[in-house]
Amino acid sequence: MPPRTRLDPARRREQLLDLGAELLAEGRFEELSVEALAEAAGISRGLLYHYFDGKRGYQLAVLHRLADRLVAITAPQDGLSPLAQLTRSLDVYVDFVRANHAAYLAFKRGAGGGDEDFQRIYDQARAALTDRIFTSGDAATLAALGLVDTPSGRILVRGWSALVEDALLAWLADPRGVAQDDLVAMLARALPAVGAAVGPTR
Amino acid sequence: MPPRTRLDPARRREQLLDLGAELLAEGRFEELSVEALAEAAGISRGLLYHYFDGKRGYQLAVLHRLADRLVAITAPQDGLSPLAQLTRSLDVYVDFVRANHAAYLAFKRGAGGGDEDFQRIYDQARAALTDRIFTSGDAATLAALGLVDTPSGRILVRGWSALVEDALLAWLADPRGVAQDDLVAMLARALPAVGAAVGPTR
Repeated sequence: MPPRTRLDPARRREQLLDLGAELLAEGRFEELSVEALAEAAGISRGLLYHYFDGKRGYQLAVLHRLADRLVAITAPQDGLSPLAQLTRSLDVYVDFVRANHAAYLAFKRGAGGGDEDFQRIYDQARAALTDRIFTSGDAATLAALGLVDTPSGRILVRGWSALVEDALLAWLADPRGVAQDDLVAMLARALPAVGAAVGPTR
Repeated sequence: MPPRTRLDPARRREQLLDLGAELLAEGRFEELSVEALAEAAGISRGLLYHYFDGKRGYQLAVLHRLADRLVAITAPQDGLSPLAQLTRSLDVYVDFVRANHAAYLAFKRGAGGGDEDFQRIYDQARAALTDRIFTSGDAATLAALGLVDTPSGRILVRGWSALVEDALLAWLADPRGVAQDDLVAMLARALPAVGAAVGPTR
């Protein structure tokens, strides 16, 4: 951050969050402290506390930022077929988790362990990622993916996103024998496959 | 437990674990204490400490017992087609989680939150449940379920088990519009569907 640039507070807060996301990609979540950020940004701890509510408030704000970014970068792009859109989104998602692996694991552990703030951010991001398939896709897109917007259909699409997350973490832990392109292609194919499992009557 | 029955220590320990599993089905995991067990069993705390290593040792032993029971009751049964076996196992699994919902959630929260003992029991049970599909099924069974025993195939079957767990918890939280039979049928159909998503080249 150039030292003599004058920014309005909202813009500076954004910059500090981006810097936090960078620090988080490099290090362990537990080490993401206001002190580390102050040092990296070249400003005082006191000024940082002006922007964030202590270490935890800062960590939560950075997680929010990362979750929002994940939702944004995986948004469907026009001009592609539904399956190509899905494949591209999954590829971006895999890249993102690879680049933020430690943070992702720590975040998931916090959310899975019952930390209500972590859980809320996690649930919001996950709902955005999965509900988007129903709310942003028109009927033709849903049909092309073999999905139906029913309670069963929503449960299975949500389940598919759990499958994606689990498969990705298993692959990151042991990628032997599976190239990223193959992983992404099979995760994409799994969505219409799971959609078809809802069955003919629903 | 009849008060005057004399049992060898191993058998009595088993009974105490079964009693713990019953207490856990009725109440909250955090309340599963040596004191509560001693009271229910009509024996002294001191004697209980002879069998179990304090509250935590007792809780872990009960979780082990529940996990082993889940693996046992969902074992494939001879005389059924592979898909019928799978459907039966899933139905038993759903019944089990319904009967032990609070314990299941607390256990999952502990495992997801990074408690290493919980995580180990959880991983062992999950590995037993999913690897069984590959190790106990012959080639014809795997083929009937559309599965191949490759790194990609294992990642996807593991992912399918995450889908099942997630779908089940979502359904328990809001079962409206989905009958248990329909849930079980679609979760069973999802396995060969996901298996087919591995693709023709693997």
